[in-house]
Amino acid sequence: MTGEILCVGTELLLGDILNTNAAFLARQLAELGIGVYHQTVVGDNAGRLGGAVALALSRSDLLVMTGGLGPTYDDITKETAAAALGKKLVWNQQAYDRMAAYFARTGRVMSENNRKQAYVPEGAVVFQNENGTAPGMAMQAKGKLVILLPGPPNEMEPMFQDQVRPYLQGRTGQTFYSRTVHLFGIGESAAEQQLRDWMEAGTNPTIAPYAKTGEVLLRVTAAATDEEQAKKLLAPAVQKIQGRLGDYIYGVDVVSLQNAVVRAFRQQGLTLSTAESCTGGGVARRITEISGASAVLRAGICTYTNEMKRKLLGVRAATLSQYGAVSAQTALEMARGARTQTGADVGVSTTGVAGPEPSEGKPVGLVYVAVSSPWGEWVKELHLARGSGAERDRIRHLAENHALYAALQAAKRKEEESTQGEKEEDAQNV
Amino acid sequence: MTGEILCVGTELLLGDILNTNAAFLARQLAELGIGVYHQTVVGDNAGRLGGAVALALSRSDLLVMTGGLGPTYDDITKETAAAALGKKLVWNQQAYDRMAAYFARTGRVMSENNRKQAYVPEGAVVFQNENGTAPGMAMQAKGKLVILLPGPPNEMEPMFQDQVRPYLQGRTGQTFYSRTVHLFGIGESAAEQQLRDWMEAGTNPTIAPYAKTGEVLLRVTAAATDEEQAKKLLAPAVQKIQGRLGDYIYGVDVVSLQNAVVRAFRQQGLTLSTAESCTGGGVARRITEISGASAVLRAGICTYTNEMKRKLLGVRAATLSQYGAVSAQTALEMARGARTQTGADVGVSTTGVAGPEPSEGKPVGLVYVAVSSPWGEWVKELHLARGSGAERDRIRHLAENHALYAALQAAKRKEEESTQGEKEEDAQNV
Repeated sequence: MTGEILCVGTELLLGDILNTNAAFLARQLAELGIGVYHQTVVGDNAGRLGGAVALALSRSDLLVMTGGLGPTYDDITKETAAAALGKKLVWNQQAYDRMAAYFARTGRVMSENNRKQAYVPEGAVVFQNENGTAPGMAMQAKGKLVILLPGPPNEMEPMFQDQVRPYLQGRTGQTFYSRTVHLFGIGESAAEQQLRDWMEAGTNPTIAPYAKTGEVLLRVTAAATDEEQAKKLLAPAVQKIQGRLGDYIYGVDVVSLQNAVVRAFRQQGLTLSTAESCTGGGVARRITEISGASAVLRAGICTYTNEMKRKLLGVRAATLSQYGAVSAQTALEMARGARTQTGADVGVSTTGVAGPEPSEGKPVGLVYVAVSSPWGEWVKELHLARGSGAERDRIRHLAENHALYAALQAAKRKEEESTQGEKEEDAQNV
Repeated sequence: MTGEILCVGTELLLGDILNTNAAFLARQLAELGIGVYHQTVVGDNAGRLGGAVALALSRSDLLVMTGGLGPTYDDITKETAAAALGKKLVWNQQAYDRMAAYFARTGRVMSENNRKQAYVPEGAVVFQNENGTAPGMAMQAKGKLVILLPGPPNEMEPMFQDQVRPYLQGRTGQTFYSRTVHLFGIGESAAEQQLRDWMEAGTNPTIAPYAKTGEVLLRVTAAATDEEQAKKLLAPAVQKIQGRLGDYIYGVDVVSLQNAVVRAFRQQGLTLSTAESCTGGGVARRITEISGASAVLRAGICTYTNEMKRKLLGVRAATLSQYGAVSAQTALEMARGARTQTGADVGVSTTGVAGPEPSEGKPVGLVYVAVSSPWGEWVKELHLARGSGAERDRIRHLAENHALYAALQAAKRKEEESTQGEKEEDAQNV
């Protein structure tokens, strides 16, 4: 099945908002095994919208449209799509009742205009909107399937996941399941190199690498007739990746590094504090993004002057004057200070030159990340500059990544020690 | 002149990356007064790309394409566009020399493949790439203009701004200049209400409101034959906005709240420290995003437990037990603590319930932001929940905004006092 995506909206044409809907739908359709070869954006103009719908139906089996389902006269997506498929619009009492209930629930007053949103093409399947007024819908004619979805991402995304995805899965007859393996410390092409034979063989499950800033994700996708079957196919594939790239894997289906950190620290019953310089609070911010973080993070101390490093973290004046603020020694004392000043189990620190100017005669991109924990202290020297343009944000983000990864390693050492301890106990019990 | 945007890339079709290029180009072309009615995405497939180019040329005067200019055999954008306009590709020594210099500068080795990138359509204008290997180009035929740009945003955006924009301005004969007025504490529709008569009149300069999370920007754009003329038109328009919305304006052309904070603190010679709870380091992180922040920020102390609030910020145990961590009293003591513990001129704090769960029996979205400064202390109670879905990130971001705005107000008070002082001095000197 081939599909295409048509997003309607003047604010997209003007570049006022990013087209996250197109990216979301593209990923979702790809996961469903539907090949998407065209994405289009047009405004609420009858002629151009009609032309775009006709063109899409001439070359694709499925057309997914977003936007233009609102209550005003210039919302014409439904009318245009229905006309292209030769469908009349008919009153849908259920859609109206749902909308009335939504207004009642949110304490807003329904206007006469909103009645327009309760008309749907005859024979259409209606997707209820849990987060707004415009229902979604699917209609079929002339061997084509057209799906209309509301424009706001917070309405469209849950509607797609909860209602449209199962609807489409029922039609394609195949179910796709994916797992995502998260790598750190290896580049995309190096990871690809390790898996090339497999990727080129194109077997089921398939494997696809994706690069994020400083991270690589491997998406492993199995196609099967049901979930159980898919899971059976996925398990050995993930194991195979672990065999080849185990050293770089920090988690499977973990969402993000900060998520993995909070999960690991909670599992081990550990607490963490951060001492940040070049990342300016970014490590703490990413950890506290996770709603379980309050059980893990005690404090995040961002010291942006030498005086503050001494006063708040207990870094020695001699260390700062001898080695400078950007040094392995200062990083270590900062991590130690984060731990001792806050009573946390683990302290993690960052200090470096984020740029754009060098500092203390040290180059942009030089960053030290240190850990202090009951299972040892260590420091890592990083060279994060790529030598092109404005990269302050990139260097800071990568430094945050390394600090989060370092925290994760500390939790892992604790875990290994516990396991070691159990093994020793087992040995004594023999 | 009508234009359209055609982005080439499999990673866009798969939804692996957001199409920031389309949004950037849409904004830029709108500012140049070029009407854009279509945006399209296709992959590196000769048939489909050729079809998309032919369709675009059949309906628009200008086609701007991004992506597919790389050195490999599946990069076919240049070849396809040149064929559509009936142009041969010819060797361009200057493009080659620039590319060779780029490789030398970044210490990388140029491969034989890269030679492909030095071929350009005959008669094309070449735009040099300062941040990568693929040059951009503009070519004309059959009354149409086609512009090809590299796909990576860090290469495309500066190339457009520095080279393509002036090139297009030269062709449209009109120059557009914009200023952006930044508002805080007023919603988009309320701001629009104040300016509706003007917006509807559609005069020159035009005014367009844009909503960001918790902020509103007003873009005022003047069309004129030269820069001086445009500036003459812009100045009274900006003044008019200041007259109507002055209370909400925190800056003109300031990029961001954090930028305005760093600028104001530097101007006033002030230092700042933050004490954060619900924002988890986010305020400090945003301030340190700005490269001049080291002259302003002393420390950012993120305290995620009551014990840490006591120990690191000196919040009194009685305050915490009587009013709770999320209270006006705790917020004030945190701000005071940030100031006294670090010796900064101004302390700003956040404490609140970011969710998803209520805390201390207090609702999600309740946030206190406080300031302690030599010009007074104050605290603001905020109710930031909107009651729909996952909004932890949104609440944290809005709380950061309010804290940054509060810091800005402190700097403003200092400024007012200085001005007041000068006036009094003036009065005495009379």
